[in-house]
Amino acid sequence: MQFTGTHILSIGQFESQDVERLFEVADRMEPYTKREKRTRVLDGAILGNLFFEPSTRTRVSFGCAFNLLGGHVRETTDIKASAISKGESLYDTARVISGYSDIIAMRHPVAGSVEEFSRASRVPVINAGDGPSEHPSQALLDLYTIRKELKITGPVENLRIAMVGDLKYGRTVHSLSKLLSLYRNIHFTLVSPKELSMPGEIVDQLLAAGHTVCQTDNMQQGLQNNDTVYLTRIQEERFANQQEADIYRGRFRLNQSIYTQHCKPNTVIMHPLPRDSRAEANELDNDLNQHPSLAIFRQTDNGVLIRMALFALTLGVAEEVEKHTEEVHWYTDKRFRKLPPMTGDQ
Amino acid sequence: MQFTGTHILSIGQFESQDVERLFEVADRMEPYTKREKRTRVLDGAILGNLFFEPSTRTRVSFGCAFNLLGGHVRETTDIKASAISKGESLYDTARVISGYSDIIAMRHPVAGSVEEFSRASRVPVINAGDGPSEHPSQALLDLYTIRKELKITGPVENLRIAMVGDLKYGRTVHSLSKLLSLYRNIHFTLVSPKELSMPGEIVDQLLAAGHTVCQTDNMQQGLQNNDTVYLTRIQEERFANQQEADIYRGRFRLNQSIYTQHCKPNTVIMHPLPRDSRAEANELDNDLNQHPSLAIFRQTDNGVLIRMALFALTLGVAEEVEKHTEEVHWYTDKRFRKLPPMTGDQ
Amino acid sequence: MQFTGTHILSIGQFESQDVERLFEVADRMEPYTKREKRTRVLDGAILGNLFFEPSTRTRVSFGCAFNLLGGHVRETTDIKASAISKGESLYDTARVISGYSDIIAMRHPVAGSVEEFSRASRVPVINAGDGPSEHPSQALLDLYTIRKELKITGPVENLRIAMVGDLKYGRTVHSLSKLLSLYRNIHFTLVSPKELSMPGEIVDQLLAAGHTVCQTDNMQQGLQNNDTVYLTRIQEERFANQQEADIYRGRFRLNQSIYTQHCKPNTVIMHPLPRDSRAEANELDNDLNQHPSLAIFRQTDNGVLIRMALFALTLGVAEEVEKHTEEVHWYTDKRFRKLPPMTGDQ
Repeated sequence: MQFTGTHILSIGQFESQDVERLFEVADRMEPYTKREKRTRVLDGAILGNLFFEPSTRTRVSFGCAFNLLGGHVRETTDIKASAISKGESLYDTARVISGYSDIIAMRHPVAGSVEEFSRASRVPVINAGDGPSEHPSQALLDLYTIRKELKITGPVENLRIAMVGDLKYGRTVHSLSKLLSLYRNIHFTLVSPKELSMPGEIVDQLLAAGHTVCQTDNMQQGLQNNDTVYLTRIQEERFANQQEADIYRGRFRLNQSIYTQHCKPNTVIMHPLPRDSRAEANELDNDLNQHPSLAIFRQTDNGVLIRMALFALTLGVAEEVEKHTEEVHWYTDKRFRKLPPMTGDQ
Repeated sequence: MQFTGTHILSIGQFESQDVERLFEVADRMEPYTKREKRTRVLDGAILGNLFFEPSTRTRVSFGCAFNLLGGHVRETTDIKASAISKGESLYDTARVISGYSDIIAMRHPVAGSVEEFSRASRVPVINAGDGPSEHPSQALLDLYTIRKELKITGPVENLRIAMVGDLKYGRTVHSLSKLLSLYRNIHFTLVSPKELSMPGEIVDQLLAAGHTVCQTDNMQQGLQNNDTVYLTRIQEERFANQQEADIYRGRFRLNQSIYTQHCKPNTVIMHPLPRDSRAEANELDNDLNQHPSLAIFRQTDNGVLIRMALFALTLGVAEEVEKHTEEVHWYTDKRFRKLPPMTGDQ
Repeated sequence: MQFTGTHILSIGQFESQDVERLFEVADRMEPYTKREKRTRVLDGAILGNLFFEPSTRTRVSFGCAFNLLGGHVRETTDIKASAISKGESLYDTARVISGYSDIIAMRHPVAGSVEEFSRASRVPVINAGDGPSEHPSQALLDLYTIRKELKITGPVENLRIAMVGDLKYGRTVHSLSKLLSLYRNIHFTLVSPKELSMPGEIVDQLLAAGHTVCQTDNMQQGLQNNDTVYLTRIQEERFANQQEADIYRGRFRLNQSIYTQHCKPNTVIMHPLPRDSRAEANELDNDLNQHPSLAIFRQTDNGVLIRMALFALTLGVAEEVEKHTEEVHWYTDKRFRKLPPMTGDQ
C-alpha cells in the first residue's frame, strides 16, 4: 500500500509488508513518546479530530499523537452539537471540514459512515471507530503490543492466542483476528458463552488461511498453553434471558489465582480497555495490576506510537520526523519508572 | 475603520473601503489555506473561541483560521457548562476570559449579547453569531465568494442576486443584504412565501440606497436572469398553520432540472449551510453536487480566508504574515483536486 | 518541598518557603500574561486538562497558562463522555492518560478522587478541584492577590481579613484559611449565618496557630476595620427551612453604600467567582464594578500567573522560562487599560 494520501479505513487494506512498514515507523516514534526528544515535523498542520461519539481515551490518544509530531488539533466531541443532527449529509460535512484541516481522525456510531465520509474528503481520513464495524488502529496497536511483549522481530508466526469473552459483538477481536490471519500458523482459542461466540465467517476466514481454531465455553481449558490471552467484557444484557446469563456469570473472569493456576508462566494479558472495575463486573481483576505480564497499559502507550506512525505515513513525513528533532527541557523522570504497589481499596 | 484593536460586531461597521481592505488581506491568505506555505505570525497568541451555542462548522472554522496563523486556541462549546448558567453576567465573563486570551470569537444565542460582552472585554471580540441578530463574517465570506465566482475585481456593481426561502428569519440574508447595499445598482429578487418575506425595513433600506428590489412567491420566475442565487432553508414550523405550509411545500427547491430550465447558464448557487439533505427537506438537491456553479463548499473554504484576515487585521499583523512564512513538508496533494462523481445513494 | 515532579494536591503540602518560591516565579510570569513578551519553554509538552465536571473559567485558565509557556493542551470537559461512566477505575484512567501527557490538571466532583488518580499517574498531577475538598491553586492565587493588592513583599503578617457568606460549604475560604494559618498574627473575622459558620476544626486550627478569630452573624460589624473582605455566595437551599433563610436574606450583601459606610477606605474586595449577578442574588453588587478596591478580576488574572508558576515548577523549567523568550508582534494595547464606566443596565 502507498500510505501517503491514503484513507485508513479498514484492517482489510493492510498486507503484511504494510504492517511491517508501519511498525518500523512506530518503533522510531518511541523517543518522542518517552520525551527523550521532541519533533516539529508537522508544525503548522491541523488534525480535524472528529468524534461524533464520546471516547475520551481514543480521542485524546489521536490528539496527543498529532501534538507529539508538532501539529495543531481542532476537535468535536459530540454528534448532538453538530450539523449532522440537523440533517446534514456526511458528504457535506466531509466537504466542509476537509477544507479546514490537513488530516482527519473520525469516530461515528454508524457502520460505514467513516468510509462514506472519506469519499467526499479532500484530505486523508483515519477511521477511529465506526460503530460495530472497524477500528483499525486498535488492531494494529494490539498486534504491535503482542510482538513487543513476546520480543518477536518481524512477522508473528506460530503464535498461540486465546480470545475470551464477548466474541460476537467485540469489534476489537474481529479486527485483530483479521489482522493475525495475514500471518502463518496462528493458533486461536476462542473462549466464550455459546451465545456470544465468534461469527462463523471470521472463523471460516481463519481456517481458510491455514490457522488453527479451537472454540470452547470452558475458561480454564481455554487459558492453557497460550502466549497471549486477550480479554473482552461480557455484558449481561447480551444474553437471551437471565437464566442463560446466570449460567455464565463470573466464568470468564481472570484474576491472580486463576492466572497462576491455568495460564503458562509469562502469558501476556491484554484487554482493549476500558475495563469495568466495579465489583460486579467479573472481568479482569485489579489484583493483577502489578503483574509484569499485564500489558493493558502498554497497549494504550503503544497506541500513541501507532497513531503517530499512521499520521506520519499518510502525510508523507515518515522520513522527515528526525530532521525536525529538538531537545526536551522539562521533567520527564518518572514517566517509565515502575509504579509502587497500590495501596487502599483499588 | 481602524481594524487594529477593534471589535467586529456588526456588518453595519463596514464601509466599502473596509471591505476592500479585508478582501485584499483575505486574498493573501490563500497560500496558507492551500498549504502551499505556512506562517507563524501569531505563534504564542491565544484565541478564546467561546461558543455558548453549538456550531461545529463555524467553531472549527474560526479555530483553524487562528491555527493557520500560528496561534493557540482555547475554547468552550456549551452554555450549560459555563458560569453564565449560574447567573454570571456577561460583564463578569468578559472581564475574566479577556484576561486569558489575545482575541475572542464568540457565539451566543441571545441577540445583543456579543456586543454587551465586548464592552467589558480587554481584547478584540469577533461576533460569530448572536442569535437571530448578526454574524458578520458570514456576510463577508458570502460577498467575497460572489466576487470570486463572478471574477469581479473591486466593488460589485450591477449585480443581479436572487435570495430564496425563509427571508424573514434568515440572519444570513439580512446581513448580506445590508452589506450589498454599500455598493451600486444591485438588483435583488426576493423569493419567499408571503409569510416569510424580507422584513420591510431591510427592503426600505435597499430601496433608499438606490437598489432595485423585486418580491415574489414564484420560484420559477424569481430564478430567471440572475448572476447568483442564494438559497436558505424553510422550516415548516414557521408557518401559521399546516394548510399554509402545504401550499408552499417543495416550491422553493433547487435541483438539476429546475436549474437547467430556469436559471441563466453559470448562475452561481450559494447556501449558508448546513443544508438539510434528508429526502423530505426539498431544499438544494444533491444532484447538483458536481455542478461547477455550486459554490457552497467554496463559501466555507473562503470563510477560513475571511476569518484569517479578520484576525490578522484586528491584531494588527496583516503586514507581518509573510515575514513569518515557512515551507510545508507534508502531503497536501489532493486538497484542491476535483472530486470524482459520487457513487451510491448520496 | 521539591516542586519538580511533585503532585500538587492540597494546600497542606505547602510551607511558607514553598509559597515564597511559587510567588517569586509567578511574579516573573507577568511579562508573559501582559503579552510584553512570550516564551516557548514548554514547546512540545502536552497538558492533559481533565475536567470531569464543567468549569469554563478554571479549565480555560489552566489551558491558557500552559499555552503561554508554549505547550499543547488536550482536554476533556465532561464525565459523561468518559470511560469513568462505564465503570472504569481512576487507577485505569490515570495509567492510560498519564501515558499521553507531560502533566495533568484534573477536576472531579468526588473528594479524594484527584489524590487517588495521582497515585497511579506517571506524570505530575495538579488538583483543579475535587468536589468539596481542595482547590489549591485558588487559595494560592487568593493569597498572591492579597499581597499584591496590599503591596506586601514577603510573608503576610498582622493581616486583618473578613470572610463573609457561606463559610460552612465554601471550599475556597477553607483552603485560604489553611494557607493563611502558615503566617503570623492573622486576624480573621468570620461573618456568616449561624447555620453556615466555619467548621470548628478549621477555627481550632487557626487558634492553635496563634491567630485571632472573631465569629459573627452581623455583617456591618464584621466589615469594620479589615484590610481585605472575602465574599462568598449564600445559597438559600442551604438553610434548614425558609424561615431561617428569610431571616438572613440580603444581610450578607456588599454594595457601594454599605462599603462606604462600614469598610475602612481601600479595603480590598475579593470573591472567588463566579458571582451571581441576578437581581435576587444579593451578593456583591455591580455598582462596585468600577471601584479601585474591587480585586475580583485581578484575582482571575493572577490565577494565570500562579498556574504558569505551578507548571513551570513541577516540570522543572522555572529557571528556563526567560531563555526561550521572544518578541510579541501583535496588538496588545488595551489589555491593561482601564475600562470606561459601564453603561446600560449592567
